[in-house]
Amino acid sequence: MPVYKAPLRDMKFLLNEVFDYPGHYEALASGGNATPDIVDAILTECGRFCEEVLSPLYQSGDDEGCKLEDGIVTTPRGYKEAYVQYAMGGWQGLSAPEEFGGQGLPASMGLLKQEMMGTANWSFSMYPGLSLGAMNTIFLHGSATQKHTYLTPLTEGRWGGTMCLTEPQCGTDLGQVKTRAEPQADGSYRLTGTKIFISSGDHDLTENIVHIVLARLPDAPKGTRGISLFIVPKFLPTEEGGVGERNAVTCGSLEKKMGIKASATCVMNFDGATGFLIGPENEGLNCMFTFMNTARIGTAIQGVGPAELSYQWALAYARERRSMRALSGKKEPDQIADALIYHADVRRMLLTQKAIAEGGRAMLYYAARLADHMVEGHTAGDQKKAEKYDDKLGFLTPILKGFLTELGCEAANLGMQVFGGHGYIREHGMEQIVRDTRIATLYEGTTGIQALDLLGRKVLLMTQGGAVRDFTLKIANFARKHLTDKRLRPYAVELLKLSAQWNLLTVRVMLAARKDRDVVSAAANDFLMYSGYVTMAYIWARQAAVAADRVRKGGEESEAFYRAKLATAEFYYERLLPRAQAHATSMLSPTENLMQLDAEDMAFIG
Amino acid sequence: MPVYKAPLRDMKFLLNEVFDYPGHYEALASGGNATPDIVDAILTECGRFCEEVLSPLYQSGDDEGCKLEDGIVTTPRGYKEAYVQYAMGGWQGLSAPEEFGGQGLPASMGLLKQEMMGTANWSFSMYPGLSLGAMNTIFLHGSATQKHTYLTPLTEGRWGGTMCLTEPQCGTDLGQVKTRAEPQADGSYRLTGTKIFISSGDHDLTENIVHIVLARLPDAPKGTRGISLFIVPKFLPTEEGGVGERNAVTCGSLEKKMGIKASATCVMNFDGATGFLIGPENEGLNCMFTFMNTARIGTAIQGVGPAELSYQWALAYARERRSMRALSGKKEPDQIADALIYHADVRRMLLTQKAIAEGGRAMLYYAARLADHMVEGHTAGDQKKAEKYDDKLGFLTPILKGFLTELGCEAANLGMQVFGGHGYIREHGMEQIVRDTRIATLYEGTTGIQALDLLGRKVLLMTQGGAVRDFTLKIANFARKHLTDKRLRPYAVELLKLSAQWNLLTVRVMLAARKDRDVVSAAANDFLMYSGYVTMAYIWARQAAVAADRVRKGGEESEAFYRAKLATAEFYYERLLPRAQAHATSMLSPTENLMQLDAEDMAFIG
Repeated sequence: MPVYKAPLRDMKFLLNEVFDYPGHYEALASGGNATPDIVDAILTECGRFCEEVLSPLYQSGDDEGCKLEDGIVTTPRGYKEAYVQYAMGGWQGLSAPEEFGGQGLPASMGLLKQEMMGTANWSFSMYPGLSLGAMNTIFLHGSATQKHTYLTPLTEGRWGGTMCLTEPQCGTDLGQVKTRAEPQADGSYRLTGTKIFISSGDHDLTENIVHIVLARLPDAPKGTRGISLFIVPKFLPTEEGGVGERNAVTCGSLEKKMGIKASATCVMNFDGATGFLIGPENEGLNCMFTFMNTARIGTAIQGVGPAELSYQWALAYARERRSMRALSGKKEPDQIADALIYHADVRRMLLTQKAIAEGGRAMLYYAARLADHMVEGHTAGDQKKAEKYDDKLGFLTPILKGFLTELGCEAANLGMQVFGGHGYIREHGMEQIVRDTRIATLYEGTTGIQALDLLGRKVLLMTQGGAVRDFTLKIANFARKHLTDKRLRPYAVELLKLSAQWNLLTVRVMLAARKDRDVVSAAANDFLMYSGYVTMAYIWARQAAVAADRVRKGGEESEAFYRAKLATAEFYYERLLPRAQAHATSMLSPTENLMQLDAEDMAFIG
Repeated sequence: MPVYKAPLRDMKFLLNEVFDYPGHYEALASGGNATPDIVDAILTECGRFCEEVLSPLYQSGDDEGCKLEDGIVTTPRGYKEAYVQYAMGGWQGLSAPEEFGGQGLPASMGLLKQEMMGTANWSFSMYPGLSLGAMNTIFLHGSATQKHTYLTPLTEGRWGGTMCLTEPQCGTDLGQVKTRAEPQADGSYRLTGTKIFISSGDHDLTENIVHIVLARLPDAPKGTRGISLFIVPKFLPTEEGGVGERNAVTCGSLEKKMGIKASATCVMNFDGATGFLIGPENEGLNCMFTFMNTARIGTAIQGVGPAELSYQWALAYARERRSMRALSGKKEPDQIADALIYHADVRRMLLTQKAIAEGGRAMLYYAARLADHMVEGHTAGDQKKAEKYDDKLGFLTPILKGFLTELGCEAANLGMQVFGGHGYIREHGMEQIVRDTRIATLYEGTTGIQALDLLGRKVLLMTQGGAVRDFTLKIANFARKHLTDKRLRPYAVELLKLSAQWNLLTVRVMLAARKDRDVVSAAANDFLMYSGYVTMAYIWARQAAVAADRVRKGGEESEAFYRAKLATAEFYYERLLPRAQAHATSMLSPTENLMQLDAEDMAFIG
């Protein structure tokens, strides 16, 4: 089993050469400490931790899984030790405010850390990932006392956190939430109900777990407007900030899942558990979703990380496994056969992985700059700034989460395919990546929900197409600048066409939706995927533009790196981007082909 | 967990109304017993067996898996009892010659049986499936004595069979096979070597197992021309046809796999095992591959069956799970939310599954008629007829195997997606279908190998495009007949365009390949997928033509069934078929975008 290597060269290319993070950090209030040297050192150190500590636990964690015995959840061997290293290294507080013990670095630095951890060992990375959700929520909506009580131990990683939304009867449709919260004389609440699919709901990594829980007050209005948010700690905090009485929240069972087996997915029972209201009554959904965009980008990483991991392993295998001769003649005449990498069809698979991993990473880093500005707005109490950047980010979020996780599954499957029959065997680890990645299109809003959010909410309802107009304007401006460059012209021309087409498609869908509301749901998936391919095309052109410039200047020590970027961009435009047109055609097709069949007539069996 | 229901209505529609199997069977020598009544009775009885006996073992078999203890492999609980019922019912000999105890029915009847069994429980169906491979090989290449010894117990299902090709160093590239066969004084051979990935290599279902093994004689030429074929029984047969001495072939270990866990995938060690040459020396590969087309169609079933199963389960779930309101207004006002099935995007997923399951089934039944003729040629010793139909079948085989198994994976993943987060949880069974189906694109020739076989061998090398010309002529003739029918005209027009385009693409690839041999491998996957989408379009139009006719005549008791067929054809043409154009574009793109990168420059890590 090959070992994860942090792709630092590519990460630094994107940060320093494509998206000017040094300049970006200089302009950020929180960016003072994020000098190029510091960033470099953090990336190197984090990469080392992921390579040496997390990667070796990837397969063993899957084999072993989590266990629930006598009400206590244990993580696989080595996870606790790795987590202690993680917490001791101060990694949990990387982007957290200094007043609570964090390092106060920009949010994007946290994303880089999440990416490397998630690539080396996605299941492990979920424990600190969920804590971050709890930290963000308390930071933004908690009272001064709540912040004081919870944020320091969470930032230090001594405590963990969860987000408790889903119940057996509802996941997407949270208006159906039934968990009850009864007010008590002391100002606290008693929560009763069952939550399912709670990642990190219980485990042995931290001394306490802080649950953020959606529940209903008595007499709350029905539906989504009657839901409030509560903090329910596993152990009630003591006055001194220690761990006190055990609360009535327990793990009823662990879900048996397809993958991410080292991540504890819990059924959580609240049996009159003590909870504390966070944020205003009945506005729990708003509070919960304040950081939804960053949470969803966190999940979008799962489209990129596993693509990278699977690519690294498949590439290594393709270089050493020999089968048949290349069609264009023997490439390794002294060997019994040529290595897989000399077969064009194997390269198609590998380059698809590469284009997805590197293109997806670049999309993440592009968006992360916006996240930095949004967080800065929140931190400074500048609501307007926060909202402005949240809106910009909000347009990209469903594209990143929806599109990249779908492509991540494709990339993982291709990596397995490169291994042939061996890909299906557990010891090689390729099928684990497929199983682990598969959750990404389901949780944190399915692809269908992302698609509806993008087309129905962000594009049509909120901006009447304005979001697409703004973004394509950026793309077109970029393209026009490169029309005269011989090497970049094909991309520029294509991007101008796509910019126009994306707007046209938006208008046509908008007009059709006025007559027929089903159009939005019918077109949403194709619109999402189309948007994803075009966005990735823009991002690949951005990379190509830098690479072309470096190659033109010549003499760079890593010219091969830039040439590889150009080759991958070419591959993307010529072999993957054509799919956008299939989505465009399908998107405009009549809703009748989906809606005309009665539900009873969908099958004639039994 | 919903239960498998045999889709008899759809099967009979295809057999009786679309592909005229009654007429086809009347014209076949082996078809005398396959009267409509008998076929009906067999389908009903087989369906009952699959629903009542095999389906309930589907999930438990996955949970339990196979076990190897003290050199003995045991299948999951219930498998042996189910197998006894299967063998006692005479199912193994359904399409086998009567002289060896079979029922002598046409080969296509066996395929219908395989389809139902494979849909209810793919892992179980592999045991008799592999036996069939051994039976076919012995029937065609065995000596009279070998037939006498092995075919009756195999036909009766008392003995099982395997195909032992793959070794640790090679699967696709069988020229690398190392297993040695030393001739003995008594005319037998002693085989020494290791075979891997041997499905049904050992198990407790039958009293004996007959291995068909590829091995090298001493001094055999290198490569594929030095491989011979041997029969190596687990127990040497006695004179009386019973089970004698234990042979030196043992299961060294069971592979731990992503799925099909109830199927024993064995590492088989041959330690001087006694074997018997079958067929001529050094022509083992030819002998092994005589029935390759039928074997690959057997695997193509795995694209259809799981799509059907996943569709049935997802449809049931979509009818009962309620989430949100349909965009076009409340559909179930008395309920807390509308059922999933009222959401257009959920219908997109379900209809994709339906179009794949029913379209794929129809493609199988279309091809199965050709298989009947081919087998009839072999049985009658009419080599010319056998070859003629094997060639026709040979063009469709890679399309069926390659394209349908890829789409089967998509369908299984969509079924899981309909379940949302619940799809990831094992108890619902949806993720098992994904894991089980995933092997289909890997074994029996990966998709890449199918693609090369189609484009490189069948289309370019063997027929210089003739295979495409012949098949598209059929499509165009069909289309022209329906140009004036208002309802069918859109399909007819599209098919005429596609027929011309398919030929044009073939010619363009052929010309490009003359200058650059890598073109074939570079274009193969897109050519395969394009061919698949067009073939499925033709097959959907065939179904639509019949359905339109029935609807036009009106008054049919099952008019809803025919309307559903028309709706699904419409969906296929408008929402799935556009993908063919993306493949057409990508197919013609330059090989440089795949080949220009040096192998060392594919990644810059570590």
